[in-house]
Amino acid sequence: MPAVDKLLLEEALQDSPQTRSLLSVFEEDAGTLTDYTNQLLQAMQRVYGAQNEMCLATQQLSKQLLGYEKQNFALGKGDEEVISTLHYFSKVVDELNVLHTELAKQLADTMVLPIIQFREKDLTEVSTLKDLFGLASNEHDLSMAKYSRLPKKKENEKVKTEVGKEVAAARRKQHLSSLQYYCALNALQYRKRMAMMEPMIGFAHGQINFFKKGAEMFSKRMDSFLSSVADMVQRSSSLCLPFLSAFP
Amino acid sequence: MPAVDKLLLEEALQDSPQTRSLLSVFEEDAGTLTDYTNQLLQAMQRVYGAQNEMCLATQQLSKQLLGYEKQNFALGKGDEEVISTLHYFSKVVDELNVLHTELAKQLADTMVLPIIQFREKDLTEVSTLKDLFGLASNEHDLSMAKYSRLPKKKENEKVKTEVGKEVAAARRKQHLSSLQYYCALNALQYRKRMAMMEPMIGFAHGQINFFKKGAEMFSKRMDSFLSSVADMVQRSSSLCLPFLSAFP
Repeated sequence: MPAVDKLLLEEALQDSPQTRSLLSVFEEDAGTLTDYTNQLLQAMQRVYGAQNEMCLATQQLSKQLLGYEKQNFALGKGDEEVISTLHYFSKVVDELNVLHTELAKQLADTMVLPIIQFREKDLTEVSTLKDLFGLASNEHDLSMAKYSRLPKKKENEKVKTEVGKEVAAARRKQHLSSLQYYCALNALQYRKRMAMMEPMIGFAHGQINFFKKGAEMFSKRMDSFLSSVADMVQRSSSLCLPFLSAFP
Repeated sequence: MPAVDKLLLEEALQDSPQTRSLLSVFEEDAGTLTDYTNQLLQAMQRVYGAQNEMCLATQQLSKQLLGYEKQNFALGKGDEEVISTLHYFSKVVDELNVLHTELAKQLADTMVLPIIQFREKDLTEVSTLKDLFGLASNEHDLSMAKYSRLPKKKENEKVKTEVGKEVAAARRKQHLSSLQYYCALNALQYRKRMAMMEPMIGFAHGQINFFKKGAEMFSKRMDSFLSSVADMVQRSSSLCLPFLSAFP
């Protein structure tokens, strides 16, 4: 592992084999980072997808609980209690759905979005500048080859000057694109840490908020309601007993 | 809506048109309940499915966070801090995964299972007994028709007695199956309330437990960790600035 943390811009013009070798290390690192980022994004999108599905599922459950009232049961005696209890449960599921929806939004904005932006902006920029640098290097190599193939006769002086200008222009272009490419690779090394941690900070904040609000929601009042419903169910099932045992 | 809450077993033998009409009301009610139960089960299984997917998704995310260390980045300088932070986040996601897994198990046992059992046991029993009652009624009708078609001649006395026995046996069988069917329909009316509410009590208890443990987990210690990570990210991004502005 080389003990350097950036590509030196002043080395770009000379473009020595040492600099090229160091460049390849930075390029390999960027490639690994791109692969890892894609895998991490996929894992995060799966968590977001599950969270989103939970929103849709709780929405459907709440609706289904309300639907009991609209079934027009042929025998509706004693159903008022069931209807009002299921309405209450539907409200609970709705409130839960609000929390799930808020969490899904937070995960989208503070976990998935930053890593998508890192991929679309930083990693894509490096890959684009790599292509441009490659093109400029090729052009420079071609113009250099053209210059070296020129016959050494005196009458070619004018052509030589022209090709010399071409070489100089190609070198300027290559130098410029290498500066941009080095800058982007250096910046990537510093952005890397932020890019890896920022989404998880968003994830953790979202969860903290979710559990805080959820714990407040499912407070004492819910407990007393549940024990009264449990009593009611108990009553129903003891009422039920004679009918179950009426016939062997 | 009739002002009755059960089929009277003593009416079963006479099998009057009034009793048959009341029976059809109970049957309609059982049919509506079966449809509604299937829809409710579907909605509950969707919630369970989402919860289960959240378990798998958090598991994958935790593994992916640990994977950073194993990437063999060509440039690993300064990565120790990132690695240890991602390890910590992986542990947080693992703990969260434990909570999600526990909730998924609770939803399976106390929400989905009771309603599946209600469908497989109570509703299926009613539907089976309905079929048996239908078969016994048909048999009884056939033996009655056979009896009434017998010629009224004296020499048929012996055949008449035999067919008479057949009719009596068929009536006993029909009576028995109607008693069982009435019992099951009556029991269903009482089980109905319990069957509708029990899964939601399970759901609510699961959520209360989940949020209580989650709120304990994401306590103060998490807050201080997050602000130290946020500081670190802040430092990284200010270090990053000169590289970003180095080239216009």
